[in-house]
Amino acid sequence: MSMKKIGVAVIGCGIVGGATAKLLVNDKELLKTRTGMELELKYIVDVNFSRAQDLGLDSSLFQSDLDKVLSDPEIGICVETVGGTTIAKDITEKILKAGRQVVTANKALLAIHGPDLMKTARENNTAIGFEASCGGGIPIIRALCDGLSANRIDAFYGIVNGTCNYILTEMIQKGQSYADALSDAQKDGLAEADPTLDVTGGDSSHKLAIMAALSFGQHIDYDKLFVQGIDTLDLADVKYGAELGYIVKLLAIAQRKENGISLRVAPAFIKQKHPLAWVSGPFNAVSVYGSSVGHTMYYGRGAGGSPTASAVVADVISAAMGITKIQFETLNIWPDKTEPAVQLPVEDFEGKYYMRAIVADQPGMLSRLSAILAEHNISIASALQKETEEYDAAVSIVITTYSTNEGNIKKAVDAIEKLDGVSRKPIYIGIVDEHEEFAD
Amino acid sequence: MSMKKIGVAVIGCGIVGGATAKLLVNDKELLKTRTGMELELKYIVDVNFSRAQDLGLDSSLFQSDLDKVLSDPEIGICVETVGGTTIAKDITEKILKAGRQVVTANKALLAIHGPDLMKTARENNTAIGFEASCGGGIPIIRALCDGLSANRIDAFYGIVNGTCNYILTEMIQKGQSYADALSDAQKDGLAEADPTLDVTGGDSSHKLAIMAALSFGQHIDYDKLFVQGIDTLDLADVKYGAELGYIVKLLAIAQRKENGISLRVAPAFIKQKHPLAWVSGPFNAVSVYGSSVGHTMYYGRGAGGSPTASAVVADVISAAMGITKIQFETLNIWPDKTEPAVQLPVEDFEGKYYMRAIVADQPGMLSRLSAILAEHNISIASALQKETEEYDAAVSIVITTYSTNEGNIKKAVDAIEKLDGVSRKPIYIGIVDEHEEFAD
Repeated sequence: MSMKKIGVAVIGCGIVGGATAKLLVNDKELLKTRTGMELELKYIVDVNFSRAQDLGLDSSLFQSDLDKVLSDPEIGICVETVGGTTIAKDITEKILKAGRQVVTANKALLAIHGPDLMKTARENNTAIGFEASCGGGIPIIRALCDGLSANRIDAFYGIVNGTCNYILTEMIQKGQSYADALSDAQKDGLAEADPTLDVTGGDSSHKLAIMAALSFGQHIDYDKLFVQGIDTLDLADVKYGAELGYIVKLLAIAQRKENGISLRVAPAFIKQKHPLAWVSGPFNAVSVYGSSVGHTMYYGRGAGGSPTASAVVADVISAAMGITKIQFETLNIWPDKTEPAVQLPVEDFEGKYYMRAIVADQPGMLSRLSAILAEHNISIASALQKETEEYDAAVSIVITTYSTNEGNIKKAVDAIEKLDGVSRKPIYIGIVDEHEEFAD
Repeated sequence: MSMKKIGVAVIGCGIVGGATAKLLVNDKELLKTRTGMELELKYIVDVNFSRAQDLGLDSSLFQSDLDKVLSDPEIGICVETVGGTTIAKDITEKILKAGRQVVTANKALLAIHGPDLMKTARENNTAIGFEASCGGGIPIIRALCDGLSANRIDAFYGIVNGTCNYILTEMIQKGQSYADALSDAQKDGLAEADPTLDVTGGDSSHKLAIMAALSFGQHIDYDKLFVQGIDTLDLADVKYGAELGYIVKLLAIAQRKENGISLRVAPAFIKQKHPLAWVSGPFNAVSVYGSSVGHTMYYGRGAGGSPTASAVVADVISAAMGITKIQFETLNIWPDKTEPAVQLPVEDFEGKYYMRAIVADQPGMLSRLSAILAEHNISIASALQKETEEYDAAVSIVITTYSTNEGNIKKAVDAIEKLDGVSRKPIYIGIVDEHEEFAD
């Protein structure tokens, strides 16, 4: 039997595109041996080839005209690693309209324009692979679409941004402030010069939208997601949390509820024994709870050229075999084919909470706070008053609650802020318990 | 477009077969919605339907004649959940020869007869899905074949037997003896009445053989595997290990070396910070190290009807889409298509070791032991002498070594056993460090 051969173009030679090109070239024989197919990198498309040159990639591959690439009938798969949601969208549409398969690592593009792009793919009898969009090299998209296909997925909890997890790990383990930990992360190449998209939770929210759509087989409105980052996190709260036995993680949470889907990205306190607690440094992990399988978890490097290239090339292999297209045509989970989800407001989010109020060091403050919490049906699980170094003549009152909802917490916080002796809004952080397996 | 419809038969209605049948019946609508296909359970084949009746499965599905099932042209997929390697082999061959796809959870069958059965499948233009054979509901086979397909897999370390992990967790956390922990596991339904296959490491070795074949794309000779179980493990060693900061796990280890493949199942000491250390109770996890992705890990319930049915039905879905067959035809990793691996002898296994000698309580013993270790090029990392309650007038000398190989350890142990004042063979347990990511 003759060996199947398929031409590949990499569009955008940045970190991921460069690593993908390098993997396709350097491991060509390995890939041929394992996959039984010849994946031939034919073009690297960009306007600037300095990175490609630095990586030692053959200049005969360099091409700045995408049209020329798409006019080559041997090109079956284009890897989009341009990034962003403007040019990348145009390029992706162009590739799809040319009937070629797209493999992308672009989470922003998919979270925001995924349904439209999938519709375009469907109209042009082609498909999109996007394993690399979530969790870097972790095959989490495959788990949701394929490995767990026999389950109703009830919830997932993900640490899906390596930059944030690295910064939080440094804050926890070294007692560094957010600003210092960020600065170190930048020095170590683990945070971008402009880290906004990572530290504000934006990147995590893109991944949340993609994974939730597939998990629940529903169309997610990205603009309705509740997203909070780590950029406003105070080291004092990390330390108070640690005294209470908690560590802080930026979690992307998706829960199926009776009346809809609850989705959020926010810093969360988890117990040391929580299954995600040990995931530290730049690593990612996603816990998925399925109706039949129970708790499963997927762990690995969530970013970086080489791990992400692993996921990109896995998609190239699936696309070359025709598997991506079969799944895209058959399964009913793709956001261009599914109904809109009922996305519950953040106020409905249920759980325990950590709250810290910075109050004047005067008698009766704890009593007044407690009264406000009681008025909002919030039961106190623990309370402690601490001297605080941050403000003169002020103390921190740290409270943990029994299960309530975020609406009650928000109202209580607003009321507490108005008390005499309280000069700033209390801080609150959700406490996320381990999800119950086989809950129903 | 009309919906694809495919008939399914479940052969063998035990724990996994029963759970599979129940999932296909109870979640029929969910599966239809998610997969876009109609998977119709048409037959449950067995000689005894008491379990099927207990599960409330419709008696119109019951069929004791496999030939009748295979004469039904609507049957595209047969789930083999008979177990064992004799009748199950005959049944599997019969199904394959009838041109039907097989989905199986039978690790023993695949570890021992996998290459022959795959050859039969290939000759009959059909395929075998076996996600459920390793790690219960964890999609680890898909990770090795598909999610990590762009990698050269360098090593994996698996906790792949829930019964053993549960027993070890009880020994560690409650200080129970092996016999007591086993007895409790049997009471809790977490160990079979005859636990031999689990506790001797046999079940883990089947999974090791299957995963190693796919990881390395080489044919594994099951009979050459080194397999040691937990049934000879002494609580005293669990406790001494804990004093040194180690916990004991039964690990299935596969490592690619320059001159071959190193494969073993054995109890191992790992540090509290090792990525597999937190995996406790009946859970399974497999750490896989890929050349491009680095360290990834997969975690979940490794056994039980419902989690295993999750994997079985995922395979039914892949088979129904035609994906199993495409992968089986295209990829070059299947053991009927690959060359035999060079399986390195256990003596070549490299690492640190824990050793305990029970010696007469008399002067000079530690010195004589140390001399023997030195003669065998083994460097001592730590040594401590402990009173022992097990034997009169005897002490335990507990030693940890720097990296050496198992051949040196075995020779040293034999020499120590012959010393005056030593009445039983010293115990040794490998210390398994975290695998180095991107080692080369």
